[in-house]
Amino acid sequence: MATATYTVEGMTCGHCVSSVEEELSDVAGVTNVDVDLATGQVTVTSSEPVDDTAVRAAVAEAGYTLRD
Amino acid sequence: MATATYTVEGMTCGHCVSSVEEELSDVAGVTNVDVDLATGQVTVTSSEPVDDTAVRAAVAEAGYTLRD
Repeated sequence: MATATYTVEGMTCGHCVSSVEEELSDVAGVTNVDVDLATGQVTVTSSEPVDDTAVRAAVAEAGYTLRD
Repeated sequence: MATATYTVEGMTCGHCVSSVEEELSDVAGVTNVDVDLATGQVTVTSSEPVDDTAVRAAVAEAGYTLRD
């Protein structure tokens, strides 16, 4: 199992949180996504380490930006 | 045809706008809903004048508040 933490910019409400969770949950191998709206901190748990590129693409798909 | 304008508090993003539009569109007689996110101004067009109570309830259902 692998856990990685990211910061997502631009989320303003619970709908935004749901969108990010939904897109990240669709990334292959991801088993859990936890989003803290106040800080933008997103914790992704997966069966195997997930490529950051896939995470970045999923966050972009939801309409937000991964902080570098 | 009737048109009424309200101010909705608490919307922060396009998802919020969609939620408000969706709930207000379900109010009987409503034919069009236009939301300005920046100002919170919501314009409701309907075949007959709509009861403010129904508008207030729909906005609350979406999770927001109609300014008095």
